[in-house]
Amino acid sequence: MKKNERISIISQVLSDHPNEVFSYNYFTNLLDAGKSSVCEDVAIVKSAFQIIGVGRVETFSGATGGVVYRPEVLESEEVALLEEIAKLLLEPWRRIQGGFIYYSDILSNPRYSKNIGRIIASKYGSKGIDYVVTTETKGIPAALETARYLSVPMGLIRRSNRVTEGATTSVNYISGSSNKIKTMYLSRRIDLKGKKVLIIDDFMKGGGTAKGMTNLMEEVGAKVMGICVIFVTKSPLDKLVDDFTPLIIMNDDDMQEAGFKVTLYSK
Amino acid sequence: MKKNERISIISQVLSDHPNEVFSYNYFTNLLDAGKSSVCEDVAIVKSAFQIIGVGRVETFSGATGGVVYRPEVLESEEVALLEEIAKLLLEPWRRIQGGFIYYSDILSNPRYSKNIGRIIASKYGSKGIDYVVTTETKGIPAALETARYLSVPMGLIRRSNRVTEGATTSVNYISGSSNKIKTMYLSRRIDLKGKKVLIIDDFMKGGGTAKGMTNLMEEVGAKVMGICVIFVTKSPLDKLVDDFTPLIIMNDDDMQEAGFKVTLYSK
Repeated sequence: MKKNERISIISQVLSDHPNEVFSYNYFTNLLDAGKSSVCEDVAIVKSAFQIIGVGRVETFSGATGGVVYRPEVLESEEVALLEEIAKLLLEPWRRIQGGFIYYSDILSNPRYSKNIGRIIASKYGSKGIDYVVTTETKGIPAALETARYLSVPMGLIRRSNRVTEGATTSVNYISGSSNKIKTMYLSRRIDLKGKKVLIIDDFMKGGGTAKGMTNLMEEVGAKVMGICVIFVTKSPLDKLVDDFTPLIIMNDDDMQEAGFKVTLYSK
Repeated sequence: MKKNERISIISQVLSDHPNEVFSYNYFTNLLDAGKSSVCEDVAIVKSAFQIIGVGRVETFSGATGGVVYRPEVLESEEVALLEEIAKLLLEPWRRIQGGFIYYSDILSNPRYSKNIGRIIASKYGSKGIDYVVTTETKGIPAALETARYLSVPMGLIRRSNRVTEGATTSVNYISGSSNKIKTMYLSRRIDLKGKKVLIIDDFMKGGGTAKGMTNLMEEVGAKVMGICVIFVTKSPLDKLVDDFTPLIIMNDDDMQEAGFKVTLYSK
């Protein structure tokens, strides 16, 4: 295999497996090349990924040496991506009776869910997250993409008790849209005890769902490392959870005039 | 920028954007290089991607020339990936009272949903799919990954009528697990008229949900190009839909002894 081809393959493998650690042995076998050649190749990939700002390629030396690609999003790219989504939300056809905005198509589009996942993973990449947790349904694509970029599993909380989940742990929460008390369920077959979890949700108004997820994580002994919510309404200013990271603030005080504002998490 | 770095960048961009067409201009600008250099670089990436069997890099010449990466899964890799999942299903702790198998964690794990998405996209990559459609909840990750690999949006069918979807088109269907008549809903804000859709579901026993999705697609004027279901029980042999592609057949006649068999779609 030629050096050029080796570099192409290393780039493809790392790009397709973010936050997965590969040993040098993996590449020497795959590429049928010596370790020193692979080290040189990796150095070039590192510099190339840096040039286009897609993230850091980290290397570990020694017997257990290896390579890992940690995706990052430049702040300018993050602003551009979130502004693009915020702009979509303003399209008049999205308005639904009762003050709701239709955005299911945006979050179900891999183009957007993927970028949202990259942005969130970029923020939490250094926190040692073991699990990404979300409550069905609309937040699933973004949570999955975040989990993919972080190379961890996703835990799925259900809004009804399904036979296919087996025994569950449940907590009650106040549903923002209806202001009723509802119940959320997590299968007891997912073991989150002692795990560092990142909670992701698509929408927050009062914060009831996020609060419910936080309580549920306490119940199962998980440690909440962060709550990231894609769309957060400006009012009420007092949410049921204190510490969360919104990606896009919906200024719903005066929606038609002011529209939405994009807020940035300070790193 | 050095030639090696250009090759690394092209590999990263193509790998991260499957089934997206990039013009040569895109790369000449990104890499600050002439078209003939970029053409040479792309040829090397093409050969490298072929060597590791991740798919084809196609090039179009002429004024509107461009490059596209079409992921493919080698048959041997497909068998290995599906057998790995089938083996997980056999773990005794997954058995739930009533003959169900717990698999929510498998489909919610990006490691598996990603590979399932790659496998399905590899099968339907040449069919000009415009939309991937699924019904909530457990099939969403695999459907999303398929959509991502095919570079098309995902349409999400709901099992209850949510205010946030606005006006909906609905059809009734027979739910396999409860044998009751239920209703599924698709937002009228998703326009599937004349679109070529691929239906994905996580589980099929009688085929009621798949039949319902097929009817719903007829209602909204979409053309169903295929139905792909991840887990399909062997019995009943007569399903409510004729033409579908199972990834894994669950031999539920004698589950404890025979376990599951992995079936392969013949290309």
